[in-house]
Amino acid sequence: MTPRSVTSTPVRRDAEATKAAILQAARRLLARHAHADITLKAVAELAGVSPPLIVKYFGNKDALFARVMSFDTDADALLDAPLAGLGRHMTRHVVASQRERGVDPLLRIVFAPMHGDHGDILRANFRAQVTDRLAARLTGPDAGLRAELAVAALVGLGVMYGIARGPCLRASDLDTIADRYGPLVQAQLTPAPGT
Amino acid sequence: MTPRSVTSTPVRRDAEATKAAILQAARRLLARHAHADITLKAVAELAGVSPPLIVKYFGNKDALFARVMSFDTDADALLDAPLAGLGRHMTRHVVASQRERGVDPLLRIVFAPMHGDHGDILRANFRAQVTDRLAARLTGPDAGLRAELAVAALVGLGVMYGIARGPCLRASDLDTIADRYGPLVQAQLTPAPGT
Repeated sequence: MTPRSVTSTPVRRDAEATKAAILQAARRLLARHAHADITLKAVAELAGVSPPLIVKYFGNKDALFARVMSFDTDADALLDAPLAGLGRHMTRHVVASQRERGVDPLLRIVFAPMHGDHGDILRANFRAQVTDRLAARLTGPDAGLRAELAVAALVGLGVMYGIARGPCLRASDLDTIADRYGPLVQAQLTPAPGT
Repeated sequence: MTPRSVTSTPVRRDAEATKAAILQAARRLLARHAHADITLKAVAELAGVSPPLIVKYFGNKDALFARVMSFDTDADALLDAPLAGLGRHMTRHVVASQRERGVDPLLRIVFAPMHGDHGDILRANFRAQVTDRLAARLTGPDAGLRAELAVAALVGLGVMYGIARGPCLRASDLDTIADRYGPLVQAQLTPAPGT
């Protein structure tokens, strides 16, 4: 047995941890910046690795970003509440994610390019993994429209917090924001009778 | 008098019309695309002029876009309704602008870069010309926060329509959308007593 084979398991584990760090860095950057503005160097710096290591593991920038274009994991956390309290939960989740971790579960969709595969993949994933998944939990008329409007309100909240940087929103505590905005999201999910 | 001086007035008028066409083209592109993705060639094509003519009139791409970073004119139309019906008016205005003219009064803010002068100018203009202007019309507690939340809902609506391209939203008529979303925007402007 050579020293190299003795260390093979730790080395493999390090590679997986490094790949995860790279994906997380790319996801964080993509959640806040346009795809075209992100360089491999920026991903590498945030992940604490060298750019050639990213190329070694993922091939190139496009291949790396294809891996981070799913909304599945984000939607799991966003939608993780009973329907009756989901509007408030989603409102809190969007603001808390930005405030505490500097990411947003939905904001990547605003950077979807209007043309080309990258934008089309993001839009299709967003629809299947976020809006359609939410619509499937709703009852009553216009469920698809109401799901899109509820998600629209949440995307706008993320834009106002993270991009427009609304000073009142950023200075307000989570409960105040949830009290004011949660019922509006909820009204799409479970409209009052007769509306 | 030379023939050149005889034609000086029409030439000057043509130049103004050409400049206006260039500004309109840049504004339309900036309302739907990231700044970094827009080329002078694309602006020139949409305006029906040559790229060197844009350089002659505006200097370069950055100088051109500095001219189109104001939200003033957009806010005039967006906010042009009595407060009691403003939520519905703004909801209709965002969807109608995208549907009928392919532009959005607010969507440029989502492409504001996180760093650098371009993003800072857009954010400052957005705040002064849209959210602060709306907040000045509101009474009651948390007026600044409520203005930001109302605008957030409208920005999100524009993202869902123009970027995520929600199929139910795009297939719905204006009144249906206004019926479902307008009251939510309105609830930020004129909250029910006790909220």
